[in-house]
Order: sequence, then structure tokens, then C-alpha cells
Amino acid sequence: MYALKDFGSFHVGGRTVEVSGQPTQTLWFSAHMPYEHDPNGEFLIEQVYVQYYIPAEQRHPLPLVLLHGGGLTGACWETTPDGRPGWLHDFLRQGFAVYVIDNVERGRSGFCAIDGIWDGAPVSRTQDQAWDLFRFGRKEDFAARKPFPGQRFPLDALENFQRQFVPRWTSTSEPQMRGVGAALQRIGPCILLCHSQGGYIGSNAAVQNADVIKGFISAEGSGWPEDDMISPETVGGRPWLLLLGDYISESERWTTARAQTAEFGEKVRANGGTAELVELPDVGFPGATHMFMMDEHSAEISAWIGDWVRRNT
Amino acid sequence: MYALKDFGSFHVGGRTVEVSGQPTQTLWFSAHMPYEHDPNGEFLIEQVYVQYYIPAEQRHPLPLVLLHGGGLTGACWETTPDGRPGWLHDFLRQGFAVYVIDNVERGRSGFCAIDGIWDGAPVSRTQDQAWDLFRFGRKEDFAARKPFPGQRFPLDALENFQRQFVPRWTSTSEPQMRGVGAALQRIGPCILLCHSQGGYIGSNAAVQNADVIKGFISAEGSGWPEDDMISPETVGGRPWLLLLGDYISESERWTTARAQTAEFGEKVRANGGTAELVELPDVGFPGATHMFMMDEHSAEISAWIGDWVRRNT
Repeated sequence: MYALKDFGSFHVGGRTVEVSGQPTQTLWFSAHMPYEHDPNGEFLIEQVYVQYYIPAEQRHPLPLVLLHGGGLTGACWETTPDGRPGWLHDFLRQGFAVYVIDNVERGRSGFCAIDGIWDGAPVSRTQDQAWDLFRFGRKEDFAARKPFPGQRFPLDALENFQRQFVPRWTSTSEPQMRGVGAALQRIGPCILLCHSQGGYIGSNAAVQNADVIKGFISAEGSGWPEDDMISPETVGGRPWLLLLGDYISESERWTTARAQTAEFGEKVRANGGTAELVELPDVGFPGATHMFMMDEHSAEISAWIGDWVRRNT
Repeated sequence: MYALKDFGSFHVGGRTVEVSGQPTQTLWFSAHMPYEHDPNGEFLIEQVYVQYYIPAEQRHPLPLVLLHGGGLTGACWETTPDGRPGWLHDFLRQGFAVYVIDNVERGRSGFCAIDGIWDGAPVSRTQDQAWDLFRFGRKEDFAARKPFPGQRFPLDALENFQRQFVPRWTSTSEPQMRGVGAALQRIGPCILLCHSQGGYIGSNAAVQNADVIKGFISAEGSGWPEDDMISPETVGGRPWLLLLGDYISESERWTTARAQTAEFGEKVRANGGTAELVELPDVGFPGATHMFMMDEHSAEISAWIGDWVRRNT
């Protein structure tokens, strides 16, 4: 049972681009409805979709804003691929208002289909790429589906998890940071919780919108703001929780990411913020993969995060 | 206040395609994380995302399944562009379990970014195209924003509505029908409510999955199944409500669509189904545009539809 004071969605941000000089074309929107399509005109692009859930009994004054990682959408916080309640559900039950973002070019935000606006082509992901990148097991063990010993991702649902994968561009960081910023300004004072590529986008949006960021949680963020954006105003006086899962040392990529995360934490502290780098095996959650919001102990991890928020904000 | 027994989401359907012989490329997923991307392998495409809301007190045994139109996503059923509760909210309050689909290539279902799988390029929509196609006013009156007299779309929110527009292909009807079919089979016996291009996709999915379709509602469907799919088995013994808004006669396109809708209704009746073609001005809702789930009288229209369902299923 979930008692909600309200739920719903909004779109925010974006910009207008103009197309001109292109020929019209006859399209068939349905088999019975031809349509003379004029590709010229003013198009709105780079908006952001936000879905929100406000519990009847809100027990924490600050909402949690959830930002997904690369090649995923806000759906990653909902029902897990093996059918358990996701972190959206968990945090609602803990009494948080929860805002779920679909970033620019993902999910219900839509992408820009106009040539020449974004560089490069969208990239898709295979199961074996996810296996390696998300630390389910060693790359060479994908064929045998032999995971890391003790890993907790529900591998029986691996194919179903793949249904969540969506294409992503690699050239859209700037519009994504602007889009998340527009969402944050609309939401107001909040705690931003970001996953993976969302950690890179979200930490940049956080320092660009420090007026509304009252706390920041990184679930294996893959990048951080440049030094010229890090100051007592942008990172000081607020708590930063930097979470990492298990098996980091098995991956050169994540070993590097861990070092970069630790370095960002030091910069936060040097500028008057508090920053804790927590490796989940050290606080009772061995077996956590990169997708720990879906791991079998996801609800225990979200409970731990909720406790951290109540202690620190 | 909304009391929910449960809510969440799932992905369903799709198929695997294989890519081979392509060179790898170095991508930057985040500014600090280079990634050697191998575009070869097995990709899952054409899956469908479904979000569901089950009310604590379900007062109708059959869930309502909502299928959006072209260039839109499931977000069109949520909070209206001017901030009122949408039909998702209205039907929940009426005691229906509600399932919202993002069809193949839209929203959280994601699109196929692999060359050569789908024909043609995705198409985007401008405000002025929507103005004409959605019957807010005459095409030539867009510049002056002079609407049809008495029209009820919240035009103050026209720019915000545009943020809901997403690109759409015109070559994906078959995978969309398969995707909706997979969703219907997972949901089980239900009433399918479709809008616009979703009416073309949904009516075809309905006759292909007649075992679970207990009622069908078209909100200005833009196409219908071919004759060889229409039989007592596929359309008989169940009610079909075919809704049209106002100002149909102002538009050649919608005048044609009305004739095709009436023709489909006759075929349904000839095959033992019940079919009512209802023009909303005739039942107390003048001013209804093509987007009548967002019009100022949207909640009154959804109440009327709920009454129809209770009377007819």
C-alpha cells in the first residue's frame, strides 16, 4: 500500500531551434492517413521530463531527486528487473518525496531528431558490455555466465534488464546539465541522488545550481566537475556521499573512477563540504554491483542511504 | 490523496538483432571515462515499457490500458500541460487499475539506433503542425494564435505541451503492434483506450489479441484493421466506443478519419460487436480538440467514459 498526497509529471527546460529550406515530404502517420510533412519551422529540443511522487506522510523536508545513468532512463529506479519494488518505492515508504528525471535524449524527454544539432550517433549497449561495465563478472566469463563470487545482481533477470537499455549520445553532456539544472530549479531545495553517468551530469548540475542542492549522493558517479567550478559556494556547507560497490579492484575502469571519486571528495572537504567515500562492502553490503539499486540487497542499501540522509541533512 | 495497492513498471517483448563486422571506436561516456566501444554483438530492440497503478479500492474488475498517439509518450495521460490531473489520475480515482504504455521507439521503451533495421528517419513536430493537426484552430490562424471559437485546449500551456513532443518513425507500425500485443498478453483481460495513431496500432493489436480485449475505446483513432482481420472472433461480443471531438468538419483530414471510423463501426456491428460512434459535442462536450484528454473539460470527459465502461462491460 502506498498513500500518496500527489503524483504526476512535468516537462521543463529546452530551447528552440529553427529548420528552414528543407523540402516537404509525404508521410503515412497511419496506413490510412497520408500527411504532407513540412520539416521546416521551430522545434523545441532538450527539455527534461520529471515524474514525482509525494507521500501522504512526508517525513523528511527535502525531496530526493533521482538521476539515472547512461543508456538508461528513470525506469531504472522503479520495479527491479526481477520484479521487486525499486528505490523509488523504498524512498517513498521511508517518507521522502521522490522526483525521477528522464534526462535529455532519454525516455519521455525525447531526443533531438534534427540533423546537425548533436554530434555523433546514438550508441546502444549489448548484454556482454553491461556484464563487464556493470561488474557482474569478468568480461571473459560472460559466455559461461560465470559471475563474480557472491555478486548480488539478479542474473536470472539479465535479459529482462536488457529491455531497459536505451540508446544514448556521447555529445549531450552540456544540454543534459542544463536540463537537470532546469529540473532542480523547478523542484527547489533537494537532495540529488545520481547513478553512473548521471553522477557526472548531476555533480556538474549540482555545482551550477548550488542554491538548491542541500545534499548529494553519488551511486558510482563516473565523472566530476572541473576545478574551476569547485568552491566553498558550490560544494561547501553540505554533505556529499560517494558510494561505490564491490569488485572495484577487478576493473581498471572502476579503479580509476574510485581514485577520481576520492580526489573529488578531497576537493569538497578542502572547500568546506563534508564528503564520505563509502565502499558498500565496508558497511555490510558485499556483492554490490554497479547496478546496486537493483541488486538483491537493494532495499537494505536504500534503507542505509535513508539513514545517512536523516543523520546528515 | 491517492491510495494505491501497488504501482510500478515492467518492460516486455522485443527481439534480438545481431551486428557484426563493424570497427570499434573510442567513446567518452563521461569527460573522465574513455570507453572502447564495440558496436558488434546482440542487441535487444522493440521492447515496450508499461507503468501501472493499482488503486487500493479497485471498483472495476477490468484494468484500463492507455496507449498514446504519434509523436507522444505515456506522459500525455499524466498531469496536463497546464498542471491539472490527467486521465491517469481521473481513472484511478474512479477505481480503475490503469496501465500506461510507452510504445516501441517512444519514451522509456527506447528506439532502435542500429542502422538498417527501421526504414526512414524519425520525424519531429512543430507547434504550428500540432495547431493544425490537433484542431486548435485553422492552419492560417496559427500566427495570430486565433483558435476555433469555443475550443477548450489550454492554449496558455501550448509551449509547455510542445515539451511532450518526441520524434517518431513512420515505419514501425508492425513492431508497435507486436509490442502492444506483448503488453496486452502480460496484462490479461482489459479495456484498451487508444489515442490517434495509437488507435491504429491499438485496434490492430486488439484484433490480434482478441482473447484479452473486453472493450475498446478510441479517442480519435487514425486507422483501423484490414478487413481480413475483422471477424466475429476478433471484434464480436464486445463493446467498441469510437470517440471524436469537435471541429471535425473544419478539417479534411479528420472528415476522412470520421468516415473511416464510421465504416469500421459498421464492420464491428456486422460481426456481432457493439460499436458506438460518439461525437463529443453531441454528449455535452463542445470545444473538444484532438487532445481532449488535456482539454479544460478533460475530467468531465473521463467521467463520461468511466460511466460508459460501467454500463457496457
